[in-house]
Amino acid sequence: MTIRISIDCMGGDHGPAATVAAAVSFVKRTEDVQMILVGQELIIRSELKKLKADSQERISIVHASEIVTMEDSLEVALRRKKDSSMRLAINQVKDANADVCVSAGNTGALMAISRYVLKTLPNVDRPAICSILPNQKDKPTYMLDLGANVDCEPEHLRQFAIMGAALFSAVEGQDKPTIGLLNVGEEDIKGNDVVKKTAELLREEHAKGVLNFYGNVEGNDIFAGTTDIVVCDGFVGNVTLKAVEGLGRFVKTVLTHEFKRNWLTMLGALIAKSALTTIGKRLNPSRYNGGSLLGLRGLVIKSHGGADAYSFEWAIQRAYDAAKNGVINRIELAMAALVAAPEIAIESSPCELGSPEIS
Amino acid sequence: MTIRISIDCMGGDHGPAATVAAAVSFVKRTEDVQMILVGQELIIRSELKKLKADSQERISIVHASEIVTMEDSLEVALRRKKDSSMRLAINQVKDANADVCVSAGNTGALMAISRYVLKTLPNVDRPAICSILPNQKDKPTYMLDLGANVDCEPEHLRQFAIMGAALFSAVEGQDKPTIGLLNVGEEDIKGNDVVKKTAELLREEHAKGVLNFYGNVEGNDIFAGTTDIVVCDGFVGNVTLKAVEGLGRFVKTVLTHEFKRNWLTMLGALIAKSALTTIGKRLNPSRYNGGSLLGLRGLVIKSHGGADAYSFEWAIQRAYDAAKNGVINRIELAMAALVAAPEIAIESSPCELGSPEIS
Repeated sequence: MTIRISIDCMGGDHGPAATVAAAVSFVKRTEDVQMILVGQELIIRSELKKLKADSQERISIVHASEIVTMEDSLEVALRRKKDSSMRLAINQVKDANADVCVSAGNTGALMAISRYVLKTLPNVDRPAICSILPNQKDKPTYMLDLGANVDCEPEHLRQFAIMGAALFSAVEGQDKPTIGLLNVGEEDIKGNDVVKKTAELLREEHAKGVLNFYGNVEGNDIFAGTTDIVVCDGFVGNVTLKAVEGLGRFVKTVLTHEFKRNWLTMLGALIAKSALTTIGKRLNPSRYNGGSLLGLRGLVIKSHGGADAYSFEWAIQRAYDAAKNGVINRIELAMAALVAAPEIAIESSPCELGSPEIS
Repeated sequence: MTIRISIDCMGGDHGPAATVAAAVSFVKRTEDVQMILVGQELIIRSELKKLKADSQERISIVHASEIVTMEDSLEVALRRKKDSSMRLAINQVKDANADVCVSAGNTGALMAISRYVLKTLPNVDRPAICSILPNQKDKPTYMLDLGANVDCEPEHLRQFAIMGAALFSAVEGQDKPTIGLLNVGEEDIKGNDVVKKTAELLREEHAKGVLNFYGNVEGNDIFAGTTDIVVCDGFVGNVTLKAVEGLGRFVKTVLTHEFKRNWLTMLGALIAKSALTTIGKRLNPSRYNGGSLLGLRGLVIKSHGGADAYSFEWAIQRAYDAAKNGVINRIELAMAALVAAPEIAIESSPCELGSPEIS
């Protein structure tokens, strides 16, 4: 099965210089992929030419006259810029020309347009953003929501848990991943009302065998790899993700600065180069670039806005993997199973089902 | 002025082995300090003997027959264990035998007992926990609340900002520190209702010249050092702090593992030892151990539960600095100034002030 990926080439800090280069590199190393590059045609063509990829058959271009900027309000992005590269890239998924769309643009706009164009899946109240972080066990920790919802009800968090588990199962090929609820302590009595009620819902799902709920986890458990999935509201998730990114940059700055301080430290770094390379690889945030917008009737992957070509290519990889593993179907099935619980079945009695036709 | 510090010797994962050793080391290197070691007398005496400090005149012991454990509920810690080392250590501050108390015990219990024994300062609705994190500018970022309040109203966050600024000014000797409000984006429209309303309150204080409000900051700004102080609710603060601690441990594990992989990487590490030492120093979380419980009528410093002697000594240093710089007075004055705003002055008309005597 060939995976067709639409790229919003104009999004992100580096624009086409990063996005087109990443797309070309990915096409070169992947047989069964087609790219639809969406954005200003002349610029994209020029980038392709630079990369000697202007005659690559598996790359096509869709021209878009507008660009959603980081400063654009949702109103402007959604209502005024109907010919933006972001909008047209998402349209490719809606029109079934692409299996998945990747953008490094404005997160709020991407979520709003995706939701407007693609609509949410049945039984999903709110889409969420799920990203992957590395952990001590050398496995991925899936974390959601990372910013789509700054206010969440317990029911939303329950749905995030279901969707996260479906994504994990599809991509990692492991059933019943463990789910942790991000809290200020492990004990049941800890946390605010929303978290306590969410824990009750997740325990119910665990008892029914729908989810593998581990219980509360704390901030440090994200990197300890205590659970496969960490669920939280978008405010907490976004702040936490950016804080750890900030610490990562800080650590990198200190490492680089200290190793470059004098010839002795540079020599040490040179001799220990293999170690530093491995360290860089294990901790490189680029490898974890690409958040999935979950709960929509189509796949959309959000790259970090500051992604360079290397990092953006990882987001494309994430998109490819998600499409290849039928993530949307998995989520749709999981959400349907959730709703098909006994309580709901009773509510949907023949009488009630018939009522709309009567009125 | 001699600073008198009471130590809850039984708290923390390592108990007296860490706390007594830290106290002895601190007394040795600091002239104007007296220590009151609170806990099981026999154990403390034996630790002092091991450290050849049993005849140190500036160290005294207060025996406590009970210990608050990490598993104790607030009810048990507060109502049942009235002779706990934690309780008696805080009592030293209340009874003016000590200027500040340090404990590595159960955070919830420490806050509850401190609040019960010491009471909150006038005009403070809720105490908060403020800790220090390192930043890229090689300066401290003060962050609060880190877990005392899992649900906050905008008014609470305003008070946290005032208290954080007073602490910063007192300890760092810098007036009008900049204050950032932790949010999911810099723009005013970002965030949930609580954060948006808090921003309004802080802008008002800024306009009045009470606070130096920078605006919204994001997670990465904590380590970028964008502002001197970062204000958030205790849920977000606690999760974020623990997440960055978790990442720190992860990075350390990877560094250590990779440098110890073979003789070449070990040689490199050996040659670059000075760099690694500096890196360790700049990023060592021990240096930042010690959260201040702010808003109480007495100083209490919370050490990390996992602190070893070295790390616990930093919490003692924090306590010493806070007491030396009259933090309580500074906070009391700042909170009084906040309330003395014109709107409030009008409310306190002679008529109303007289009413209690009339009735």
